Amino acid sequence: MLDQSEVSRQQSRDRRTVESFWDTRASGTAKKILIGATLAFADLGYHGASTREVAARASMSPAAVYIHFESKEDLFFRISESGHRAALRELSDAVALSSDPVQRLRLGIAAFASFHAEMNVIVRTVQYELRVLSGERFAQVAAIRREIDATVREVLVQGRDQGVFDISDLDGTTLLLLSFCIDISRWYHAGSTVQRSPSAIGLQYSDLALRLVNSR
Amino acid sequence: MLDQSEVSRQQSRDRRTVESFWDTRASGTAKKILIGATLAFADLGYHGASTREVAARASMSPAAVYIHFESKEDLFFRISESGHRAALRELSDAVALSSDPVQRLRLGIAAFASFHAEMNVIVRTVQYELRVLSGERFAQVAAIRREIDATVREVLVQGRDQGVFDISDLDGTTLLLLSFCIDISRWYHAGSTVQRSPSAIGLQYSDLALRLVNSR
Repeated sequence: MLDQSEVSRQQSRDRRTVESFWDTRASGTAKKILIGATLAFADLGYHGASTREVAARASMSPAAVYIHFESKEDLFFRISESGHRAALRELSDAVALSSDPVQRLRLGIAAFASFHAEMNVIVRTVQYELRVLSGERFAQVAAIRREIDATVREVLVQGRDQGVFDISDLDGTTLLLLSFCIDISRWYHAGSTVQRSPSAIGLQYSDLALRLVNSR
Repeated sequence: MLDQSEVSRQQSRDRRTVESFWDTRASGTAKKILIGATLAFADLGYHGASTREVAARASMSPAAVYIHFESKEDLFFRISESGHRAALRELSDAVALSSDPVQRLRLGIAAFASFHAEMNVIVRTVQYELRVLSGERFAQVAAIRREIDATVREVLVQGRDQGVFDISDLDGTTLLLLSFCIDISRWYHAGSTVQRSPSAIGLQYSDLALRLVNSR
């Protein structure tokens, strides 16, 4: 149970994280609205956050929101697409740093896990409300998800082919590695008994990933 | 992307799961309302589901809901408390089947993981909207969560003390084992590339749990 001052400290931290996320990904009024929407969806869920709540967090009128975005789904798509691209970028940049599969898995999972701790306020909404998207928008986000999946899978196959990973179940291991990283965004913000920095979580999870493929 | 007939098959499956969950845990009108609330929260999120939506899924009037439950939070608390108790029961019954830590971890994780696949429609809401609860209600659910945590930890300590588990980080390993099981409830329903029965998932996860503690 968080007391009131902890809640407001948490809210300030969340706002700073969201502002820094959008800083390089949008500009002007659109950026203000995307920041407001990200915070509103994280607080109240997609269905619970009205355009009024989004506008309030952006210090704007609801009408002003509609000048820039055609719908709430449109806003969610922008957040979801940018969040997924950022996660993919963290992962793929990290695995590109080495040609050795053990190092690539270690670096990739460390980056992906610490991203999910650091950016938990963004990832939570994006992951748990994905069903909001439909049609072409869903297809675009699903394509990024497949790239994330393929990036992990490729490292696992490389390690298996070189005989350094012992993997009997490629689909299951790929899913599990992504799954345990994504779940960080559920528990990290809530004040768990395990309080660590995002980079410490990255190190811990990369060790555990290597255990999962039996490579130590 | 699910097409319309897949969506409605999924909805029927979800309703059957929710009905069977409440069958032994409530009765009469209260049971009807709890079934409606569980489905409404799973569909729309806690904040997105109005009492009207809850009532519609229970084929009742909103006024009738308030005769039995004082508030939406009251309903969420009942679902959350019952869901957590059921998860604890699955886990603790399973670890009680053996005195050998390797078997206990295997059985416990298999039961806990397959519960999260089978009951994903209930667990999702319960896990991702926990912050809804406050005060005494939060404390009651938090106490059950601590028991779940303590049950896993006790098995890990037993295995470590007997020299069959290699665990450098007891808090982190406990959290991770619970975390990867809970995350099943996020991806299991959504039509992942890995489609398995709950019991197959249980077996897979118990193997992975043993890898995590380096015991094979």
